[in-house]
Amino acid sequence: MSPLRVSLVADLGESFGNYTIGDDSALLDRVTMANVACGFHAGDPRVMDETVRQCVERGVEIGAHPGYPDLVGFGRRAMEASEDEIRTDVLYQLGALSAFTRVHKTIISHLAPHGRMGSMATSDLTHALGVIKAAEAFDPSLVIICQKGHLEDQARKRGMRVAMVFLGDRAYGDDGLPVPRTRPGALLHDSREIAARCVQVVTEGLVRSVSGALVPLGHDVDTILLHGDNATAQTSSEALCQALDQNGILRTGVRDVLAHKA
Amino acid sequence: MSPLRVSLVADLGESFGNYTIGDDSALLDRVTMANVACGFHAGDPRVMDETVRQCVERGVEIGAHPGYPDLVGFGRRAMEASEDEIRTDVLYQLGALSAFTRVHKTIISHLAPHGRMGSMATSDLTHALGVIKAAEAFDPSLVIICQKGHLEDQARKRGMRVAMVFLGDRAYGDDGLPVPRTRPGALLHDSREIAARCVQVVTEGLVRSVSGALVPLGHDVDTILLHGDNATAQTSSEALCQALDQNGILRTGVRDVLAHKA
Amino acid sequence: MSPLRVSLVADLGESFGNYTIGDDSALLDRVTMANVACGFHAGDPRVMDETVRQCVERGVEIGAHPGYPDLVGFGRRAMEASEDEIRTDVLYQLGALSAFTRVHKTIISHLAPHGRMGSMATSDLTHALGVIKAAEAFDPSLVIICQKGHLEDQARKRGMRVAMVFLGDRAYGDDGLPVPRTRPGALLHDSREIAARCVQVVTEGLVRSVSGALVPLGHDVDTILLHGDNATAQTSSEALCQALDQNGILRTGVRDVLAHKA
Amino acid sequence: MSPLRVSLVADLGESFGNYTIGDDSALLDRVTMANVACGFHAGDPRVMDETVRQCVERGVEIGAHPGYPDLVGFGRRAMEASEDEIRTDVLYQLGALSAFTRVHKTIISHLAPHGRMGSMATSDLTHALGVIKAAEAFDPSLVIICQKGHLEDQARKRGMRVAMVFLGDRAYGDDGLPVPRTRPGALLHDSREIAARCVQVVTEGLVRSVSGALVPLGHDVDTILLHGDNATAQTSSEALCQALDQNGILRTGVRDVLAHKA
Repeated sequence: MSPLRVSLVADLGESFGNYTIGDDSALLDRVTMANVACGFHAGDPRVMDETVRQCVERGVEIGAHPGYPDLVGFGRRAMEASEDEIRTDVLYQLGALSAFTRVHKTIISHLAPHGRMGSMATSDLTHALGVIKAAEAFDPSLVIICQKGHLEDQARKRGMRVAMVFLGDRAYGDDGLPVPRTRPGALLHDSREIAARCVQVVTEGLVRSVSGALVPLGHDVDTILLHGDNATAQTSSEALCQALDQNGILRTGVRDVLAHKA
Repeated sequence: MSPLRVSLVADLGESFGNYTIGDDSALLDRVTMANVACGFHAGDPRVMDETVRQCVERGVEIGAHPGYPDLVGFGRRAMEASEDEIRTDVLYQLGALSAFTRVHKTIISHLAPHGRMGSMATSDLTHALGVIKAAEAFDPSLVIICQKGHLEDQARKRGMRVAMVFLGDRAYGDDGLPVPRTRPGALLHDSREIAARCVQVVTEGLVRSVSGALVPLGHDVDTILLHGDNATAQTSSEALCQALDQNGILRTGVRDVLAHKA
Repeated sequence: MSPLRVSLVADLGESFGNYTIGDDSALLDRVTMANVACGFHAGDPRVMDETVRQCVERGVEIGAHPGYPDLVGFGRRAMEASEDEIRTDVLYQLGALSAFTRVHKTIISHLAPHGRMGSMATSDLTHALGVIKAAEAFDPSLVIICQKGHLEDQARKRGMRVAMVFLGDRAYGDDGLPVPRTRPGALLHDSREIAARCVQVVTEGLVRSVSGALVPLGHDVDTILLHGDNATAQTSSEALCQALDQNGILRTGVRDVLAHKA
Repeated sequence: MSPLRVSLVADLGESFGNYTIGDDSALLDRVTMANVACGFHAGDPRVMDETVRQCVERGVEIGAHPGYPDLVGFGRRAMEASEDEIRTDVLYQLGALSAFTRVHKTIISHLAPHGRMGSMATSDLTHALGVIKAAEAFDPSLVIICQKGHLEDQARKRGMRVAMVFLGDRAYGDDGLPVPRTRPGALLHDSREIAARCVQVVTEGLVRSVSGALVPLGHDVDTILLHGDNATAQTSSEALCQALDQNGILRTGVRDVLAHKA
């Protein structure tokens, strides 16, 4: 029998100019995929070039991580936007990143909208359509990283490959969705708790919610997201890797995860 | 005998958000190539999408027109920059534009750095290297639009195709280069004068300089640039097309111009 | 008996860098007050300097017109923002404008949040508190330009002076508020209709709504806003001035309007 | 006899949005003055508000630290700019900061242009005139922080107060000016060396240059700058304070330093 498989993903390349954020280099040793910021909410052309270079060096799959044009808000504030604004903003960022994947002789393998653009694509059809139409027109073979919601629905409808993500260091509600990051306790810091949750969600599909209930996610978990700007990201990712290994869960790229489901 | 050929190019897609500049739609009927702004000094994702769409509709070749990250200065102020800063800024912009050419099922056929980045690439080796290394890594078949100088030298050295540009509505000095646009009289407005100069430069390789001398450019003219934000762009371009036609000079794409020289 | 009085206000100084918008110079001859963009959604330091200079030259009262940090969206897209984000963004913009009023030996007399920040300050308490706390801390004598809603309530609660604005070239709903600008027909273009509406709203307090009903605004109109980027702004403002004059309504500054109500 | 006096200054408030830089809180305990970033090269409205608040709390004098509009370059890349561009950019930033000093019931006491705008104001007359005309028009009582050069000359010519700065953690050349920060060894890291240099420069007016010579600065040192983004800023500032104290040099505000020279 084939072992359980999961990919590990982190948001990387979020530094900007003279500003450094996260410990990309350490995380790159643990993850199998990177969501690379594309210069709107974070990242700049030098950071993108270097991040792609490091991903290639370590065999990490590269994904586009487009966000709102809101650097000062780090893409974490919802913005009113038409489908066409979202579509063209995502296209622009996909294209910008593709210059660096081309130069480093690799490809963009997936797409994961960042922050509030990501949560809006889950809950708002206009955002979902903007994102998915950009992705489909740019490259219909892109894997779309989703939570339950409109983006997932639209991606499946168009026959695009979908990978369901679990936010490893975020508290979840009884609806099987992460609670807003502004809510106290939304960010988890205990690396053993994080590791144990992730194992349970991969093996049983269940997550302990903020109410204390054991909630079914309602879908497979194809990839687990760890945040690089979380102070405990380093220890959490280490603990998680150990826990996955001990439970016989194979850490691998998301294309491999999806291939073994088919 | 094959007729003389020249391409006509304009800087297009320089509107931004709520701001409109130039009369792109009118110019698109005259030019054979467009330098499309890529969002740093001008342009935004919606403008780029629409500009590429219009170019495709009218069979106009599309080129990337990257500039400094200086929207408020419209890319017309020189910036200190390392080769790596120029290289990655140009790559980012090439990539961003390529998303829109991909979606509209066409390609980026040439590269023409904008404004002061363009003039610096002519006069400064660091800038030239930054631009040309980006172009070569992105697509070695790109045609590089040049004036005499470092960018031309570096492009030829690397075996890339070069198209020499004549600025149709700009005054030239005795060195066969355009005088700085801040100099009084740098911008020409008389459409008949502009048309006559362009014919002479294509047929004889000579330009009347600001000193009154008839100066040899020292190179073929493969493409003539008209500015869309010049109030007289519309009448100038009309007069120019007539004059070229009357003199039996074929208006065509730059790839065709270069092919007939080989 | 003292004549009816009203001030005329326009959003000015919305050009940016190489981009020109509106016909400020023409409008400045008609209005008694200017809402001056402060560099976030529109305007730049040169434009602000020149706009303030022209206002002083023509005796036009100057107001701050802060907006969201969204140049590409022209401040017309709602953004999620905390009270503190709104408060500090408004303070920053008030301060920036005050440098130019100081240099030109005048003052900022009023505050009118721009676009969606303005409509959000009407409908959302968090936005209203952010705006009003900035205004009060900066200068408690500022006149706050309001529509019915939270901003008005908070301004009155704090004892700040309030001037109620009527959007002269916008369609109104049965609730006595302008309909969203994205709705077809939201922008009026017939200058005679605009002029007549404004006279009626000043003299009778009634506006013909989109449903055809004659709706009471429920408040005095202290100032009428005309948009400079409306193609018909020039003819509308002319027609409006004539109509006001013919009906014996005095065009004056908003401080004068308020002084005569007290 | 009155003791020698010197002020200590640091560039503070250089964080931006989600990005934190430097250890402002620690430096604020040592310095007597702060150069506060104004949102162009670094800083944002929240950071400015908080930085001013902390300065007031600790009795630290506040200065404006305007820079080029180049966030991605952190204001460290020279930009071509007219006198009017510099003047209005500086005015805008002075005004923006003044909103926060007003709210926190303090004043802007000095002006120190940041990074390359600062070094250009030293070496280029156009930049110097832009900066000084902004300062003079905004508040002729501002203290101008200078190195030897055009900015100093222009400030003195206009009768503005000048404070000469010594860059405590930077290597100097035989010309008595700091060597460019891109040169290897330009940044000093040995806190004892830094402290000893500063004492010598205050007491004797001499600095050991990169060539090994003991060079006269040619002017008093009124204020010593320490960089907050230097990894050793914390230990250096501690060592410097001790060394100044041991040598009987009074650490005080720059207005006090200047008052005792008069």
